[in-house]
Amino acid sequence: MNIVIIGGVAAGAKAAAKIRRLLPDAKVEIYTDDTHVSYSSCGLPYFIEGNFIDYKSLLVRSVEEFKASGIDVYLQSRVEKILIPQQQILVATATDAKLVHYDKLIIATGARPYIPNIVGYGNFDNVYTLRKIEDGIMIREKMLQSKHAVIIGSGFIGLELLEAFVKNGLEVDLIEKFDRIIPSFDSDMSEIIRNRLEEYHPKKFNFHTSEIASELIGTDRTVTAVKTLSGKVFSTDFVVIASGIVPNSEIAKDAGIVIGDTGAIRVNKLMQTSVPNIYACGDCCEEKHLISGNYVWVPLGSTANKEGRCAALNAAGIYTEFEGVLGSSVTRCLNTTMSMTGLTEEEANKYGYTTVSATVSKTDQVAYMPEAGDITLKVIADKVTGLLLGGQAVGAIGADKRINTLATALLAHLTVQEFKSNDLTYSPPYSPTIDPLLDAMNILCSKISRPC
Amino acid sequence: MNIVIIGGVAAGAKAAAKIRRLLPDAKVEIYTDDTHVSYSSCGLPYFIEGNFIDYKSLLVRSVEEFKASGIDVYLQSRVEKILIPQQQILVATATDAKLVHYDKLIIATGARPYIPNIVGYGNFDNVYTLRKIEDGIMIREKMLQSKHAVIIGSGFIGLELLEAFVKNGLEVDLIEKFDRIIPSFDSDMSEIIRNRLEEYHPKKFNFHTSEIASELIGTDRTVTAVKTLSGKVFSTDFVVIASGIVPNSEIAKDAGIVIGDTGAIRVNKLMQTSVPNIYACGDCCEEKHLISGNYVWVPLGSTANKEGRCAALNAAGIYTEFEGVLGSSVTRCLNTTMSMTGLTEEEANKYGYTTVSATVSKTDQVAYMPEAGDITLKVIADKVTGLLLGGQAVGAIGADKRINTLATALLAHLTVQEFKSNDLTYSPPYSPTIDPLLDAMNILCSKISRPC
Repeated sequence: MNIVIIGGVAAGAKAAAKIRRLLPDAKVEIYTDDTHVSYSSCGLPYFIEGNFIDYKSLLVRSVEEFKASGIDVYLQSRVEKILIPQQQILVATATDAKLVHYDKLIIATGARPYIPNIVGYGNFDNVYTLRKIEDGIMIREKMLQSKHAVIIGSGFIGLELLEAFVKNGLEVDLIEKFDRIIPSFDSDMSEIIRNRLEEYHPKKFNFHTSEIASELIGTDRTVTAVKTLSGKVFSTDFVVIASGIVPNSEIAKDAGIVIGDTGAIRVNKLMQTSVPNIYACGDCCEEKHLISGNYVWVPLGSTANKEGRCAALNAAGIYTEFEGVLGSSVTRCLNTTMSMTGLTEEEANKYGYTTVSATVSKTDQVAYMPEAGDITLKVIADKVTGLLLGGQAVGAIGADKRINTLATALLAHLTVQEFKSNDLTYSPPYSPTIDPLLDAMNILCSKISRPC
Repeated sequence: MNIVIIGGVAAGAKAAAKIRRLLPDAKVEIYTDDTHVSYSSCGLPYFIEGNFIDYKSLLVRSVEEFKASGIDVYLQSRVEKILIPQQQILVATATDAKLVHYDKLIIATGARPYIPNIVGYGNFDNVYTLRKIEDGIMIREKMLQSKHAVIIGSGFIGLELLEAFVKNGLEVDLIEKFDRIIPSFDSDMSEIIRNRLEEYHPKKFNFHTSEIASELIGTDRTVTAVKTLSGKVFSTDFVVIASGIVPNSEIAKDAGIVIGDTGAIRVNKLMQTSVPNIYACGDCCEEKHLISGNYVWVPLGSTANKEGRCAALNAAGIYTEFEGVLGSSVTRCLNTTMSMTGLTEEEANKYGYTTVSATVSKTDQVAYMPEAGDITLKVIADKVTGLLLGGQAVGAIGADKRINTLATALLAHLTVQEFKSNDLTYSPPYSPTIDPLLDAMNILCSKISRPC
């Protein structure tokens, strides 16, 4: 049995390791156009910041370690084509090309940065995106020689890089096309995040929302400024484009595999594509949203791991299901934790729910404790049934605890009525006597159609 | 309408404030034998430690504030008797006694320290228990003048005081009658806690398990040593007895109100006692355990608040239910977080479950992050159905996040199979790529009757 895996960052590496244990006699191979395999892409901003010095800390498993466990990894080997009738892939290196037979194929091609339409893109060496190990090494080197950066995009990676640059003494201009930063949050929560961040000292950065970066200006392959559609010009030492990512699904699409409306590969609960012996997992494929029931594309490392495991089990003939995602996520920017799960209120309304929400601002420990920090928590529910739909938390590190608790409630489809007697832990260094989540439930109880 | 509340620390104070808002025309009175009302008893160890200086930080609401909102608080007023047929209580102060009529009565008499059988108890001034504001003030004063303390009991309060004393430079001998410290945890987890604590530097304390404090030795009302049954003698400057608490349910029992097997007042989901217009809430009453279905007595401040609210709503004629508890709790001792929810494996086996468990030791953030700490998480499930039964986590502060997440799964009666695709948040400063909870689920998947 030949198991071939395309891509080896998170989902691919996980799938390979799992299959190796399940099918000791199978041939397991990973083909990737990357120069590294099995690494923590999510850790790159913290490497750039200097939270740890050696980028090798990001490497989970080396080619040699894979080899020792009986998995062959082919780096810088780009899969050009999937030939479904022949059960073959066409692999090209810098100097060579070959056809490789598969019995089961696992597509884990990941995603790549989205590049918005900017005049001059491609003409300069000091314009970066952040996705791979090399990107992180280059950005860190450049940062250490620089005084000013422009970041285009204020999503998670944009804000993580903002922290890295500010903590390394740089001035930063951050350009965001939407009218708010971190637009995946509801606008009220986005405003709270912005207000918190703008209180940071020394505030050596500026957010420029509703501004579209339109032109890179410079000479001799060196950008010196970024111009926006409205005519603003930001002089800078370098530019990072952090405007989102797109799935690497073209190879599947070209082979005739069904692609979803999100642009990512459609899979069933077994991580099977429209071709039964071809699986997909990780950032290249869609997920079911556990609240809305829609197909969504939420590319995250934690999900990639679960999907890689699920694809491996099914490819090895062991039935298992991956249920879907809630869109749970968290990040940190300059001591502010931002965490969310489920639908935002804006999304929920778009899907037709009549929503009620409760927003609670409170300390995350009892207020008299010296380390108590502030958090703001928003919880969203369906007005008619009380079904919990989602939540967002911002502030001290304890914000994330509430979101994981809420995510579990969403997974279980709990209502406000059911959650309100939840026995959450309490002790002064860990929570106020009434946890912000329970305050939110008490408020929601009075807002839903049948008060509780 | 006369609403009378006996006791005013947590449940009583909460009930009074809630009823005041619900029934603006009712007369609301609190009678308590305490010298303070509405305070955070759980914060006393942190006051003793010096995490904050003014004990008044522990006071939530003063007698004057209650008065201003139309609630009369009678301090140092002991309720001697409940006269059910007459709907009256007999209240005694140092100088007076009176009968007070009630239409609805809420019993929130709390609990008091349990005093084990020790020769000499009562003969000395430097032997303390910790329950009330005065206790905290006295212990702190004594600690500041002392070099050595003996603590009898290694439950939550015993360990919280250990931290307080050690951080203030004292040497401590802690005597525990069970064969392990913090015996509410499973023995394997208790051992991990002990090992972690014993690594603390400078380790100026010793645990003496399987030792029963049998005699207090001293002269002139001053204890100078504690003797154990096995003949050991610990010289000391003062002693704190932290051997658990007992419910103040005698007044209810004497009136003929039904008391449960735990010794606390039995109530239904409306917090109603066996007498329809008498409610009980807080540390004096029992709860239903949401996993075992048994009546239990888990006296905690967070539960007291929920029960006080529930009793108030029902007393005011608004139907609401309090479902019960999971026994969720957390505390800190010398930088070790200890948190638990649901049944321990030992309890679950006692109740007849055939259990499987998974114990995972892992960092609470990705290991390359500088603040990553170690946690050990144990999750217990029913082997046949996969139903999650409980869990315990020990270690860095992130341990508690996992227990709140798990508590929510227990509330929803989730199985291992359902929990394993839980979309928990991930980012290097907050969690490893695969959260310890998900590792535990993957292990449990292979241990339950139908692997998943």
